[in-house]
Formats: sequence, C-alpha cells, structure tokens
Amino acid sequence: MTPDQKAPVCVLGTGLIGGSLLRAAVGAGYDAWGYNRSEAGAQAARADGFDVTGDLLGVLNRAVDTDALIVVAVPMPAVDHILAEVATFAPRCSLTDVVSVKAPVAEAVRRHGLAARYVGGHPMAGTSESGWAATDPGLFRDAVWAVGVDEGTHPEPWLRVARLALACDAVVTPVVADEHDRAVARISHLPHVLAEALAVAGAAGGDLALGLAAGSFRDGTRVAATAPDLVRAICEPNATALLDVLEETLTVLGAARDSLRDEGTLVDLVEAGHDGRERYATAQRWEITDIRPGDHNWREALREAGQRGGVITELD
Amino acid sequence: MTPDQKAPVCVLGTGLIGGSLLRAAVGAGYDAWGYNRSEAGAQAARADGFDVTGDLLGVLNRAVDTDALIVVAVPMPAVDHILAEVATFAPRCSLTDVVSVKAPVAEAVRRHGLAARYVGGHPMAGTSESGWAATDPGLFRDAVWAVGVDEGTHPEPWLRVARLALACDAVVTPVVADEHDRAVARISHLPHVLAEALAVAGAAGGDLALGLAAGSFRDGTRVAATAPDLVRAICEPNATALLDVLEETLTVLGAARDSLRDEGTLVDLVEAGHDGRERYATAQRWEITDIRPGDHNWREALREAGQRGGVITELD
Repeated sequence: MTPDQKAPVCVLGTGLIGGSLLRAAVGAGYDAWGYNRSEAGAQAARADGFDVTGDLLGVLNRAVDTDALIVVAVPMPAVDHILAEVATFAPRCSLTDVVSVKAPVAEAVRRHGLAARYVGGHPMAGTSESGWAATDPGLFRDAVWAVGVDEGTHPEPWLRVARLALACDAVVTPVVADEHDRAVARISHLPHVLAEALAVAGAAGGDLALGLAAGSFRDGTRVAATAPDLVRAICEPNATALLDVLEETLTVLGAARDSLRDEGTLVDLVEAGHDGRERYATAQRWEITDIRPGDHNWREALREAGQRGGVITELD
Repeated sequence: MTPDQKAPVCVLGTGLIGGSLLRAAVGAGYDAWGYNRSEAGAQAARADGFDVTGDLLGVLNRAVDTDALIVVAVPMPAVDHILAEVATFAPRCSLTDVVSVKAPVAEAVRRHGLAARYVGGHPMAGTSESGWAATDPGLFRDAVWAVGVDEGTHPEPWLRVARLALACDAVVTPVVADEHDRAVARISHLPHVLAEALAVAGAAGGDLALGLAAGSFRDGTRVAATAPDLVRAICEPNATALLDVLEETLTVLGAARDSLRDEGTLVDLVEAGHDGRERYATAQRWEITDIRPGDHNWREALREAGQRGGVITELD
C-alpha cells in the first residue's frame, strides 16, 4: 500500500459510531461495507445506499479477499464474540476498534491471538442517540480520535487507522491503552455518572423542581438521556479507572459539603472548578509533525507528544 | 391601576438578569429605568439607549413619584444594602426581586419593614456570562418565572409582578419561598456544584484528558465557566437546602461506587438517572386558569397548582 492508498474498510456494527464511520469513509472515497447484527439496522443502512448486511461470514470473507481494515464497532459486551469470529475467519486482516475503553479490548484481542495487526482506536464523538438513524458522516469533524501506540503496535496498520481517522475529518491523539482509559474515566465516564446522579436529584424534587429546571439542569443531565444499557456498556468495563476518579470526586464533594456546612462557603470548590474549566476552554491543540511511524522509538515519542496535548492533523 | 396598565418599572442592578429585564420591559412598552453601582455598566446601558444611572437616590425618587414597581436585581450579598436604601427613600413602592434564593431575601425584606408590598420573584434563566454586555431582551422567552405566594402576599403587587413576567414572555410558576429554595437547590445549585467537581476531575487528568474531552465534558462543565463570585452568591445563601441535596447525592454516588466496586455494575444509578431525565424531558406544563388573585384562599390554591407543575400564561 502506498501512503495515499485508501485500503478497504470493513465495519462490524453500524450503530451511531460504526455507522457514522461507514458513511464518513464512503464519503471520503473508501471502499467500505458493514455488518450489523440487527436486520432492521442493516436494512435502514441499505435503504440509505450503504452496503450493510447481517451476514458476518460474508462480510469477513470480503475483508480477507480485499485485505481490508476491520473496524470493531460494537459495544464492549459484544466484543468478545465478534473477535472470536474475526480470529476464525479473518485472522490476518488489520484490525482496529472504536470501543470506549482500550485496555479490555486489547486484552480480548490478545486472548484471540489477534494482537499482531491490532491498533486500538476511539473517536471522541457521540450523541445521546443511538442506532443507524442517528448516524452522521460529519460526526467526527474536528473530533479527537485516540489511536493506540501500545508496545508491539506495528507502523503499517497504525498508519491505516490514523489515515482513516483523518479522512473522517478527525485529528489523531496517540495514546497507550491504560492512559486512555484513565483519561476517559475523567472526561467521559464520570460525566455520565454525575449526569445520572443529577437527574435522580432533580426528579426527587417532583413536578415543581422539574418545572423550574432551566439550562444548568438541562445541560448537566443531557447524557443521562442515553440508553441505560449503552451507558453501562461504556462505563462498567472501565471500572478500575472510574472507581479511582469517582472516589476522588466523592472526596472533593465531601470537602465542599463540610466547608459549606461549617463555614458557609464553597470557595475552594468553585475556584478550583472555574480554573479547571478555564484550562479546558483555553487548551490548545498543537500539531505533531516530526515523528514518523516506524522510526526509532516512534511509539514512545508519539505517546509523550499525546500526553502534552499534541495531535496529528496530516500524514504524508 | 386597571388590569392592562403597565406600571413603571425601576430596576436596581443592570447585570445579566436585571439588564435583560430592563430591555424586555422597555421592549414590551413599559416605562422602565435602572440603577447600576458600576458606572461602566451604567454607561454601557446608556450607550444602548437605556435610562440607567449610578444615582440611586434619583432613581428611587423617580420610583416614588411614578408609583413604580421596584425590582431588586443585585446578587444576594448586596441585597441588604439595597433594601436599606429602598426602606429609607421608597418604602411604599411595590417591591420584587430576581435573586436566586427566596427565603433569605424575604427575611431581609421583613427586617427592613418592606414586607407589605413585597412579592418574591425568580426568573429561571441565565447564561454563564454576566454584566450588561451579556443582556438579552429575549432571555426570558418561554422561561419559568417563579412568583411568590407566601403568606401575607397582597394581590395587587402580585399581579404587577406576574404581568411583568408575562410581558417578558415568561410563564409564571406560583411558589412559596421555602419550597422554591429546596427546588432550586436540586435543579440549579447542585448542577453548579457537580459542574465544578467535574471540571476539577477533568483538569486533574492534564493535557491528555482535557484534549480527549468532548460533548459530555463540555456540557457537564458549562456552568463552571460562571464567575466564581457569582456562583458563590447564588449557592451559598441557600446552604441549608443545598446541604440536604448534596448529602443525598453523596449517598447516591457512594452507593454507585459500592455497586461498581463490589458487583461491577452501575445498573441502579443509570436506570434511575435515565428515568429522572425522561421525567424531566416529558414533563408537561399545564395552564392554571381558574384561580384569581384576591379570591378566597388564592395563595394556597396557586401554591398547590404550582407544586403540580401548573403555570400561568395569561392574566385578564
């Protein structure tokens, strides 16, 4: 494959993320097709002109025949089953995924003997909707797409995955699985947990409280509208990292409670929170330009750049 | 005053809420003017064609001369000082406020001997911005405006306040101070506290976590961008009610932590949260049409209707 070739893409699972990826890849000129377990979802995709079926074996055979990149785009609880099929029918294809945690997927990939051509992936995009009807080829525009640089990752599949992310109009953040999982516990899974808790607290106030609710409650509970099974599939596989940051947050909230009760003030929490939000709002992405996948120590160099907020916006 | 008369309106404090109210009232045909402590804020309002000065005595004298409704629109920490001036220079004017808590304002009003013509108010609208530059005459469109029906409230000033709220395109929820304060602790003050805690947790993840942050973190921390002094002025005066719901939420989050640690699941939290958000998203406002202020037992009847989600959308 020359650098500008667009290798075929085989998407396993055409829900919100996988379906949007399929649409974006086709829109970018890739030969891309998909599998969906539910026939209704596959039909909806076909009605929109996309090549999606419920025939997993056929889809995987086509991937083998065309040396496609296989993208696992099912929720974590379904990953093991899908990888077993990949290991049986397409064990030598390049492989990535768009699942919300990386270490458990990498572990499953190793268990199925698929590690050699695997590169972890996670586009940081989504809505509270799900299914084909919610798919959007522009979902990844300006989004960050985490692409794994774990030990043993090979440059050729890495470049395929990174090029696909860029073709979807995302930017690439290189990251290793454990650091990814700890980071998303903070900025994706904890937001889910707090949104659920806020929704519980509001509803406990009955019609009066819900009737008085305005922007802060609406925004603070938005992701609690996500289907419960999906929230659990996102958060529960990352239990270890989520427990750490949840414990940390319980400590922060407990200290705020004590301060409000004993001294009538929330000053420490409010100032630290404002600083944190400011840091987020003013954070600048910077472009990683000087590290070529395959060069000496490329994975470690990319990892270190990603830790400092660097992203890849183009590859030659 | 006949029912369709628009009594003059004197706004004390022309920040985000007071300034937007002034703009909306003038837009609705009211004779309205304002006072602002900061000369820069008053000048900005004048530059936009509004009658705002730093001369509190002059502003209050004009309120007395025209029998205006005085609207206290300063943060809670400044309420006592403003009420002292009102008690000295305009003690017989009708009086309302737009402060985020109601029991502490009512207590201050009583202390200054102004209770007879006072009606508590709180428009449930805002942004994370503040000051005249952020004002918007459409800020209250379709918003809920809580209007107090506490014991001793007189129908004539009540109707003035409710008519002003409707003229600003809001709907009116009748509520007593204590119930208001407990409700807003749940749907306004707790969202602030959780947003601050989430921003702290995200920032603790450094550039990598903040770089991976997407919609759930952005929405969940939005109100943490509010100026810290303003957040404290909103939340701290409601400490009692906020402490209750914060304690409740610590219990809910602690149970979720235990369940995730011991059983690997967030099922109880996620399902309850989803139910709460659904209840919020599907809540229907219904119109209170059969209760006339001044009728027998009108305050209690309005209070009970407000508890059940009723709103007033017009007054004849």
